[in-house]
Amino acid sequence: MPIPSRVRIYEVGPRDGLQNEARPIPTAEKAEFIRLLVAAGLREIEATSFVSPKSVPQLADAAELLAMLPAVLADMRELRMPVLVPNMRGLERARGAGVTAIAVFTAASDEFTRRNIGMSVAESLDAFRPVLQAARAEGWWTRGYVSTAFGCPYTGRVDPARVVQVALALRELGVDEVCLGDTIGVGVPRQVRELTARHIAASIPLERLAYHFHDTRGTALANVVAGLEDGISCFDASTSGTGGCPYAPGAAGNLATEDLVYLLDAMGIQHGVRLEGVLTAGRFISGLLGRRVATKVGQAGGWDPTTGHPIGRS
Amino acid sequence: MPIPSRVRIYEVGPRDGLQNEARPIPTAEKAEFIRLLVAAGLREIEATSFVSPKSVPQLADAAELLAMLPAVLADMRELRMPVLVPNMRGLERARGAGVTAIAVFTAASDEFTRRNIGMSVAESLDAFRPVLQAARAEGWWTRGYVSTAFGCPYTGRVDPARVVQVALALRELGVDEVCLGDTIGVGVPRQVRELTARHIAASIPLERLAYHFHDTRGTALANVVAGLEDGISCFDASTSGTGGCPYAPGAAGNLATEDLVYLLDAMGIQHGVRLEGVLTAGRFISGLLGRRVATKVGQAGGWDPTTGHPIGRS
Repeated sequence: MPIPSRVRIYEVGPRDGLQNEARPIPTAEKAEFIRLLVAAGLREIEATSFVSPKSVPQLADAAELLAMLPAVLADMRELRMPVLVPNMRGLERARGAGVTAIAVFTAASDEFTRRNIGMSVAESLDAFRPVLQAARAEGWWTRGYVSTAFGCPYTGRVDPARVVQVALALRELGVDEVCLGDTIGVGVPRQVRELTARHIAASIPLERLAYHFHDTRGTALANVVAGLEDGISCFDASTSGTGGCPYAPGAAGNLATEDLVYLLDAMGIQHGVRLEGVLTAGRFISGLLGRRVATKVGQAGGWDPTTGHPIGRS
Repeated sequence: MPIPSRVRIYEVGPRDGLQNEARPIPTAEKAEFIRLLVAAGLREIEATSFVSPKSVPQLADAAELLAMLPAVLADMRELRMPVLVPNMRGLERARGAGVTAIAVFTAASDEFTRRNIGMSVAESLDAFRPVLQAARAEGWWTRGYVSTAFGCPYTGRVDPARVVQVALALRELGVDEVCLGDTIGVGVPRQVRELTARHIAASIPLERLAYHFHDTRGTALANVVAGLEDGISCFDASTSGTGGCPYAPGAAGNLATEDLVYLLDAMGIQHGVRLEGVLTAGRFISGLLGRRVATKVGQAGGWDPTTGHPIGRS
């Protein structure tokens, strides 16, 4: 399987990156963050979430944010801007906000979904059935997350066969894309290769599969390469690495978009995103969150092979 | 090529990690650092350097440090403790200190060696000839570094053919091991695979080849996996990631031993080093340097797949 010549970078910063932040971010600043991401060339941005404002007050302004975007973004036609939707109530809110792409969120571990969304995995899939049916009836793009695909913070090791089972169930419910998430950042390339192989064996097309890696233990880019070399062409990332690991406070969470873009550029793989634009967006969101830039490439800059000098250092 | 079932971790913290530090570290504390590394299971530790004390005052205590070790380490028989030696003067000092393993240091870029050691690459190889001859006559183990193998901070892109040429020259001078270094942390797996393939094609045995990756742009573990998957079985690392990148101040340098050990453990590859021991040594040296633990695994801990909980968090 040759490495794909072009990949999709699915930016999760505005949703996954901000959903656990203690510091409140004004809606207009979120819109500006999204504007900078689009200016950097990102075309798929998970913008927000229509979950309960009580559980996730950080994203309670979902409708206001989406209403603000058309004025901020010159042209939204080329953008896919999914929102997380947990149930029919969320779907109705999303519909009212003019959404055309959604994501639903389950896991490969019952203990995880019970503690996270108060349901077993099977119950969560039942809850998604009408949501995905309605979304498909509208012609929306849909994605299903399989969280804890590499390990569960409550029960440890996760059987890869179980991951495939949940992925297949999501596909049967009609999702356009299944995204396997390393929620606690424990995965290594051997596991990525095994999961990819098992999904291929289960006849899930490679172009319907995405990976969401956390860099909690420094393995995210290694995992991306393991995915790439087996033909995977969509990877999640969060600009400035926002979205730490709630199971290891202070540790890194989401793979930083800066680091992913550097890697893909240096591997000669096309993706349409400009590193310097992402570095700008990363400095912006780090500033809003009151943090120094903590991503590797944010600190070191990119690299100009014609001069040998770093580029875009903060 | 199957992934090696066992690899060697070559620890460079005491030498490469400390050689650019502004804060002076007392010799007894260096000895304690080495004691903790050995207690963690590390068996190859580049201890210090017999370069000019004027150029590298941080390691001016090389002889004192080595003299201290037998009292600190219960048993040194199973250890390989190379020291960096730039010339015959350094070799004589090393001999006087009772060393049995040395490393010499050149690069794939003339501009780099000129600025770093005041010689062209060819001149540096000439200077090593008598050094390596004397070392072999003593029956010592010898290693030759090819620095800037992935890129030069002064001239940019480096021709992989040039890297092989320097590696072959070092082998002709008799080094037991050639170590290819990504001095400025710009390398990606595609380059690793190409370099490995070219060295195989040049009949340099895989077991004579090691990689020294920097995590400056987050790619170090991805590069390790690319090496592993092509049969490389020796990787350098520095406990607590000491040894920042002098060409991007504030950015990360050496791959952290903690992160490498986590990856190898999770990949099921043997190496003989205990993660918790390395985490202890990492906290010790970070404390001496007056820094928080900055490695990914140092912050997040390892992971116990039977319980799902992090282990050894600082």
